[in-house]
Amino acid sequence: MNLMEVKMKFGILGTGIVGRTLAVKLVELGHAVTIGTRSPEKTLAKTEPDRFGGPPFNVWLKQNPKVKLGTFAEAAAQGEVLICATSGLTSLDVLKSAGEANINGKVLMDISNPLDYSKGFLALSVSNTDSLGEQLQRAFPQVKVVKTLNTVNALVMVSPQKLANGDHSIFVSGNDAGAKAAVTEILRSFGWKDVIDLGDISTARAAEMILPIWVNLRSQYKTPWVNIKVVR
Amino acid sequence: MNLMEVKMKFGILGTGIVGRTLAVKLVELGHAVTIGTRSPEKTLAKTEPDRFGGPPFNVWLKQNPKVKLGTFAEAAAQGEVLICATSGLTSLDVLKSAGEANINGKVLMDISNPLDYSKGFLALSVSNTDSLGEQLQRAFPQVKVVKTLNTVNALVMVSPQKLANGDHSIFVSGNDAGAKAAVTEILRSFGWKDVIDLGDISTARAAEMILPIWVNLRSQYKTPWVNIKVVR
Repeated sequence: MNLMEVKMKFGILGTGIVGRTLAVKLVELGHAVTIGTRSPEKTLAKTEPDRFGGPPFNVWLKQNPKVKLGTFAEAAAQGEVLICATSGLTSLDVLKSAGEANINGKVLMDISNPLDYSKGFLALSVSNTDSLGEQLQRAFPQVKVVKTLNTVNALVMVSPQKLANGDHSIFVSGNDAGAKAAVTEILRSFGWKDVIDLGDISTARAAEMILPIWVNLRSQYKTPWVNIKVVR
Repeated sequence: MNLMEVKMKFGILGTGIVGRTLAVKLVELGHAVTIGTRSPEKTLAKTEPDRFGGPPFNVWLKQNPKVKLGTFAEAAAQGEVLICATSGLTSLDVLKSAGEANINGKVLMDISNPLDYSKGFLALSVSNTDSLGEQLQRAFPQVKVVKTLNTVNALVMVSPQKLANGDHSIFVSGNDAGAKAAVTEILRSFGWKDVIDLGDISTARAAEMILPIWVNLRSQYKTPWVNIKVVR
């Protein structure tokens, strides 16, 4: 299967910059995309720029008319492949809202990070002996969770070739080999050349623990265009 | 100051493969090296290979006659620059044995990792909201702790050019700018080209949290010759 050619239906959970950036890319590639939010009415009613200075969602949606908006449940029901693009602390709750009937049996790309700023400094809400990826997999055992893309900025996620000609690495972690293969094809269609399978979903710990150094580097180099390349 | 030319005295705490590998490199570069151990008599009395299959210490020492052996306190007293090359769980105790009078005011390269296998899987004994580097700095506030080299195998530490022509990265974290500059010079004398200053000692968290992915990659590629390159 070459996903460059197969057109699929994606359900993206989360209307932030990450969800929007992925939606644009997937539409460009010819896929059908429904973005889910808790309340479409409230999301459409917002008139302020988002917290990263992007336009209000309704303005963005008019600029991207092929993207559909729905509830979390509607987006999940529409999607053949789901992407969890919420902030990590809400991922579990969002999946509950989406509803097991709409997510069970499907591939879920978990690209969120359990970032917790409540301590006054950046920390992970779960780490080292557990991970957000594992929490999602335990909570929804019939979903095929694949942790991926959480180690880079949204711009790098969809345009890896714009950084060092794409000569850097991205990771997948998950229990289902077929789901990882499908996600790997999706990543390749984005331009990723070096997709590294870390192993089962417990290896999401390793991927999530990269966050602190990524945040450090992103801050000190003052650019989102930063990533790591595995050299071997 | 160019440490390629300045000959210095190093005190290495730990007689394992990491301490030995660093000792050989430093002697090659013309420095004086004393390796410290809890009991030199017991260390010299060992007749079995070490746990990585290396020769017993006394055999190794005869092969490397320029290296001196002493207690932790003697090695620390001799060294102008100290290297903590013990297993991470014993680092604090080893520094106590070395004695504050012998370590205060000195640069301490902390290259150890708080690896904890007691849970039946690899985890860090301290992580996310604290780090081993910070624990050492708090316990010995007058020591200039610089976290470094903990993200690579001992062979890569001293021969970075043997992996991808040295085109990969190493990190330093510490509160003292002069100490980080001195350590950076030492790293450059080993062949490191891309030495990245992450910031104060709290950034040792980020460096130590790389361990899980390093262990994963080292295992799956079945080689110690693996590292990450920061691409920006």
